[in-house]
Amino acid sequence: MPQKLRAGILAATGTIGQRFVDLLADHPSFEITALAASSASAGRTYGDACAWQLSSDPPAHIAGMVVRECTPDLDCDVVFSALPTDQARELEPQFAAAGHRVFTNASAYRMQNDVPLLIPEVNPDHLQLVRQQKTFSAGGFIAANPNCSAAVVVPALAPLHQAFGVHAVIVNTMQALSGAGYPGVSALDALDNVIPYIPTEEEKMAAEARKMLGTVLDGHHHDASFKFSAHCNRVATRDGHLQTVSVALDRPASLEEIARVWRAWQPEPQRLGLPTAPQPIIALRTEPNRPQTRLDRDAGRGMAVTVGRLRTCEVLDFKFVALAHNAVRGAAGGSVLNAELALARGYLQ
Amino acid sequence: MPQKLRAGILAATGTIGQRFVDLLADHPSFEITALAASSASAGRTYGDACAWQLSSDPPAHIAGMVVRECTPDLDCDVVFSALPTDQARELEPQFAAAGHRVFTNASAYRMQNDVPLLIPEVNPDHLQLVRQQKTFSAGGFIAANPNCSAAVVVPALAPLHQAFGVHAVIVNTMQALSGAGYPGVSALDALDNVIPYIPTEEEKMAAEARKMLGTVLDGHHHDASFKFSAHCNRVATRDGHLQTVSVALDRPASLEEIARVWRAWQPEPQRLGLPTAPQPIIALRTEPNRPQTRLDRDAGRGMAVTVGRLRTCEVLDFKFVALAHNAVRGAAGGSVLNAELALARGYLQ
Amino acid sequence: MPQKLRAGILAATGTIGQRFVDLLADHPSFEITALAASSASAGRTYGDACAWQLSSDPPAHIAGMVVRECTPDLDCDVVFSALPTDQARELEPQFAAAGHRVFTNASAYRMQNDVPLLIPEVNPDHLQLVRQQKTFSAGGFIAANPNCSAAVVVPALAPLHQAFGVHAVIVNTMQALSGAGYPGVSALDALDNVIPYIPTEEEKMAAEARKMLGTVLDGHHHDASFKFSAHCNRVATRDGHLQTVSVALDRPASLEEIARVWRAWQPEPQRLGLPTAPQPIIALRTEPNRPQTRLDRDAGRGMAVTVGRLRTCEVLDFKFVALAHNAVRGAAGGSVLNAELALARGYLQ
Amino acid sequence: MPQKLRAGILAATGTIGQRFVDLLADHPSFEITALAASSASAGRTYGDACAWQLSSDPPAHIAGMVVRECTPDLDCDVVFSALPTDQARELEPQFAAAGHRVFTNASAYRMQNDVPLLIPEVNPDHLQLVRQQKTFSAGGFIAANPNCSAAVVVPALAPLHQAFGVHAVIVNTMQALSGAGYPGVSALDALDNVIPYIPTEEEKMAAEARKMLGTVLDGHHHDASFKFSAHCNRVATRDGHLQTVSVALDRPASLEEIARVWRAWQPEPQRLGLPTAPQPIIALRTEPNRPQTRLDRDAGRGMAVTVGRLRTCEVLDFKFVALAHNAVRGAAGGSVLNAELALARGYLQ
Repeated sequence: MPQKLRAGILAATGTIGQRFVDLLADHPSFEITALAASSASAGRTYGDACAWQLSSDPPAHIAGMVVRECTPDLDCDVVFSALPTDQARELEPQFAAAGHRVFTNASAYRMQNDVPLLIPEVNPDHLQLVRQQKTFSAGGFIAANPNCSAAVVVPALAPLHQAFGVHAVIVNTMQALSGAGYPGVSALDALDNVIPYIPTEEEKMAAEARKMLGTVLDGHHHDASFKFSAHCNRVATRDGHLQTVSVALDRPASLEEIARVWRAWQPEPQRLGLPTAPQPIIALRTEPNRPQTRLDRDAGRGMAVTVGRLRTCEVLDFKFVALAHNAVRGAAGGSVLNAELALARGYLQ
Repeated sequence: MPQKLRAGILAATGTIGQRFVDLLADHPSFEITALAASSASAGRTYGDACAWQLSSDPPAHIAGMVVRECTPDLDCDVVFSALPTDQARELEPQFAAAGHRVFTNASAYRMQNDVPLLIPEVNPDHLQLVRQQKTFSAGGFIAANPNCSAAVVVPALAPLHQAFGVHAVIVNTMQALSGAGYPGVSALDALDNVIPYIPTEEEKMAAEARKMLGTVLDGHHHDASFKFSAHCNRVATRDGHLQTVSVALDRPASLEEIARVWRAWQPEPQRLGLPTAPQPIIALRTEPNRPQTRLDRDAGRGMAVTVGRLRTCEVLDFKFVALAHNAVRGAAGGSVLNAELALARGYLQ
Repeated sequence: MPQKLRAGILAATGTIGQRFVDLLADHPSFEITALAASSASAGRTYGDACAWQLSSDPPAHIAGMVVRECTPDLDCDVVFSALPTDQARELEPQFAAAGHRVFTNASAYRMQNDVPLLIPEVNPDHLQLVRQQKTFSAGGFIAANPNCSAAVVVPALAPLHQAFGVHAVIVNTMQALSGAGYPGVSALDALDNVIPYIPTEEEKMAAEARKMLGTVLDGHHHDASFKFSAHCNRVATRDGHLQTVSVALDRPASLEEIARVWRAWQPEPQRLGLPTAPQPIIALRTEPNRPQTRLDRDAGRGMAVTVGRLRTCEVLDFKFVALAHNAVRGAAGGSVLNAELALARGYLQ
Repeated sequence: MPQKLRAGILAATGTIGQRFVDLLADHPSFEITALAASSASAGRTYGDACAWQLSSDPPAHIAGMVVRECTPDLDCDVVFSALPTDQARELEPQFAAAGHRVFTNASAYRMQNDVPLLIPEVNPDHLQLVRQQKTFSAGGFIAANPNCSAAVVVPALAPLHQAFGVHAVIVNTMQALSGAGYPGVSALDALDNVIPYIPTEEEKMAAEARKMLGTVLDGHHHDASFKFSAHCNRVATRDGHLQTVSVALDRPASLEEIARVWRAWQPEPQRLGLPTAPQPIIALRTEPNRPQTRLDRDAGRGMAVTVGRLRTCEVLDFKFVALAHNAVRGAAGGSVLNAELALARGYLQ
């Protein structure tokens, strides 16, 4: 058995940090060797510093680890970052400069030209962009996973874009509370309410979708050119971003062809059998009332995108419903899969 | 003081029936003289037969009334119907044939050519269609209010359709639990969940929007011709259907022009000061995060349509958020306002 | 018509401050002349500074008022305080020293010997304790309403204590989210959860119940001596603290006698017809499943205590369910009624 | 490897039936060979007949099984019954008469003298009562698990009863929606509400607690004699019954002694290592705000009882909070553990 790579987690005590812990606690390729958080938590055990939300208690062998500060001397080979944007902007380059491979959920560098914005099923070749980063020669780089809402719809669009060309998309999200972190949304704003606004989310979705479905030629990235309009809403669900999507294609396709493309899609992580890759990546349901947030968010251990209600759209060409787990596929699980891809492609030697 | 018209309520003990009671208990033009429900309730007092949901107790002078069966010999001049579709299909023509003016929330006859599908602010002239009904000569007719989801977006579209022509609409609804009646949705399906499917709702919204925004010429109704695509979802809110809307217009309009049209709109019920007409009908908010379901559903005592987040849509022309109270504007209040319009126009002599 | 007293509200933009605004905006005896809040809000209009939670917008004539800082030179005769405890501890004595009559919802001085802890229906004579305050000679004093949980059960116990003597009480609360203020409880802690712990709440309930049901003799206060054990829980309701209560009495009483005492109770605020006093104060329901939080919290415009499920307790003597609106009866409404009592008894000249 | 016993599930498509499927799908001693439900489901595959609630889909090897009618000729050795009470009353004796060992979650025969009401950690010796059943000589019998609320508090009381004697108990439950089955509680009754009434639940808890903590002597059962008073409430949680408990003991005990008894308790299922027995059965937490419904209901895979907030009660002796998963420990998991005990004790040959 090959030795596991040593993994550090930044902002390990937060909502997404806990998901990183959960996904890496028994991972076949990575071993948690460092947990870092704010100075208020540093020096305490993880079990003590962390208000663990996922079950009664964190994994026993992790709970006893002492939390460190977020400094680049952490004892690890790869770094998973759940840092807030402003801290990520400052600290992640320091980690990369110190030779760390940083797999980040933060938005700080997502749109930077030489940072791959990566969904391994969608655009694995974008990983090569890390070679453009000036820290790469010394081994360090930053690779980002997308916004939790982009992570739902983009995998559903990707094989259709390849097969037919996506021309225009209107998407409406019904996003879970965990997407806003902890404490995040006030219960008084959530209960018996919908908030039809999530700051900067609609712009992120559009920009990130075009970046991820774009192409890398000669080491340079080029955005896709389709039109994308998002309506983003917060609803009272714990986890799982449900989205309704209307799409116009460049080349006409029947509903049967669309379903066939989704069912046939076997991208690289699935072909390689990467540990966190769900099988299948797109779970197409045919019941009239699925996917539903609670029933389907855990499909593929939170990594599958479940689609359903595929039907004709009177305004654009067709419409459907998509769902994925925002904190797994849309955050920590996305970065873990990014690291698995990087390992498989030889970027982590 | 003129004598009030005597009003009967069919299915008076249900969710919408209770709203009729609430709106008519102190109405200046109508007086509740008959409450009818299923034979299980008939013969009991209303307070006893009804699991009143709106506050501790029904109005005292109503609670003591004896519930009757839904037969056309009810002692009243106008009838407000909250009957389920199949019962409405059978019973409402019997009431009209007996000379009753039936203002119904049921969908049974909404799409029938000679039945006006009415929002008094939107298409008051459609009321004349009742003259085509064969029972009209004897005084009886049926007039319907639209589906609770159509009742939200159509008033927002109406003045824009008049000013610029609506070309295409994509709407996503986040609909409240009360729209499904009582007991309606199981708590196990509602809590921590979104159900992206409401049977027949998407088709109803499209068909009813085109009927209401159509025209009546020489006593004959003609649908509007715009394209309309709906995604309908059930979320865990008690009351209030929130909708996100993307629109393409026939003639270009700036966001300022759209806002100006909404602000300037003073349709007939508002000009006449009908008792249930909200002032204004369209409440345009400019905060980034409004309307919100809980905060804005009671605007105009549940009769206003609150719109906000007006902005450009990258795919169609512009987009916005709309909200109204599904059980008031979208159901009982709609029919009460229909009756007020009918009274003002002389149809209830 | 007598001139209204000028009222100031401290912490006017918060959850309870908004309730004060709502209750005083059209009050027959008080007129809002000053709104004060933190320096972040001071200088802005109330409509702008306040995230109004109670409906679409604050009352129009209030929304335009400019918010002031919480300093004792506010232009008002009486002060209603929704200050957090630590600020209350510092500022309320300053207001009293400046001659203001302070009606406070804060806990800072509730247990101080010369501060009346007041529910006008329960212990109106305790108001005389303000005469012991050293600021009283100059016209200023502090009078407190109880903790929002004590405000539910104590009115239900009061007439029974008078009639039969309360010997021991075990109470379990299921408290609403608004009791924790805004933003207060995280939605991630509230949804699909019960939190069986509210810091210091259980101790407050016991101490305050004994203080309020105690006696004032010769200007000195003496606690009641019954045993009181509370289990306090936070549940996912917006407003309304529901409580289950088991009681042992000093002198035996049948369920009929208990019901009779509740029904017959007409304490001073009801006899005087104080504007905010509900009629009746104790609403006894006989359905098997009432009171319920959502249905009954607004009884008596949020000022009534609804009781029900009166039955024998196998361990103590009898048991029942009690409910009142925590933010009205249990907070702002309690202080408004305290001020009305003070006005009626001549303390506000 | 010994051959597995063939297991049938009655009412397999319902809320508790699904839990039986989930717990038995990979069980080391039992193998699902028969799924039975109403005649509306019979003849269809389980995947088709069942609205599976626990995740995206039922286990694949179960989903394809054809559902049978609930008749005693089912192909199985042991029967797990999730039947509604009235059907259980009629059908379970037929199954026992046909030689089946029936482990039931239904209340129909729980209080019958010769039916053991069993929590294997609490009263394993009561299993011998099945020998009194007239069907036992032919191999068939009925053994019941308790009401889902009794299943939470009774394990917490059991070792204390043994050590100190329980004298009196007042318990307040905050019960999850799944306890009412599916569709069960209307979302309109659950959202933003507490219902302080669950028909017959309070009586069941008292009677069942006394039966389970009673003794069997010479084949005859004798109830325990302590006083027990329950307040039962429905709150808006999916799973997990949280309870607050005040207890008086026969012999005084310090909080430390109580904690020590809980921590030291290793009853028979834990000593035998029965597959479904949690380790430990009583999980004592020392944080001030635990257990919480969402965080702790899955402890011990839903079979542990988590207790916390142990402290002095001013009225009785001490008080605490208890939580267990109502649909696992309190229903299907309880019956599976009953069957495991019966197997270990040789009742299933």
